Amino acid sequence: MYAVIFRSVRTPDWEELYQEHSAKMELLVKNIKGYISHHGHRDSGTREGVTVSYFESLEAIQEWREHPEHKATQELGKSHFYERYEIEVVKVEREYEWVRE
Amino acid sequence: MYAVIFRSVRTPDWEELYQEHSAKMELLVKNIKGYISHHGHRDSGTREGVTVSYFESLEAIQEWREHPEHKATQELGKSHFYERYEIEVVKVEREYEWVRE
Repeated sequence: MYAVIFRSVRTPDWEELYQEHSAKMELLVKNIKGYISHHGHRDSGTREGVTVSYFESLEAIQEWREHPEHKATQELGKSHFYERYEIEVVKVEREYEWVRE
Repeated sequence: MYAVIFRSVRTPDWEELYQEHSAKMELLVKNIKGYISHHGHRDSGTREGVTVSYFESLEAIQEWREHPEHKATQELGKSHFYERYEIEVVKVEREYEWVRE
């Protein structure tokens, strides 16, 4: 299993357009073969956020990165949505889970 | 570079004790040789959060996991702080960074 860690700082603007694209991308990524899940949170005060998206393979990550609609949104990310971002593509080496009984 | 992805759901209780231990762990982890940085956010509505902590090696991650004070806080995590959590230890394969000019 692989994951993409996306850490970003939102600009203070374009909230409606951002939410619209965010919702569109959430639907779109689910169609990528090998997509598993994603989990993200943002601090509305600092506008900093982290999203981790899990995929079965590096090929699935590449397909998602190069999806035409995603690429268009990535461009809006640079022109409108983000002050900065950092992305890491990572390989999951070990997993643990704990659930309260 | 390696990272630990910690995804959790807070219980609705023990906020003061949680914040106290959280602050203590933030200071403590910085003393681990090989610690690089960490970034975390939590949604106060759903109580779901993600923290990503970066380390230079698996040995540094092991040292942090087994640090006595951290172990004591991990126990409080199970008894008091969390409904559930999932941890992944990951190896960073590729990194990208973009900053608005």
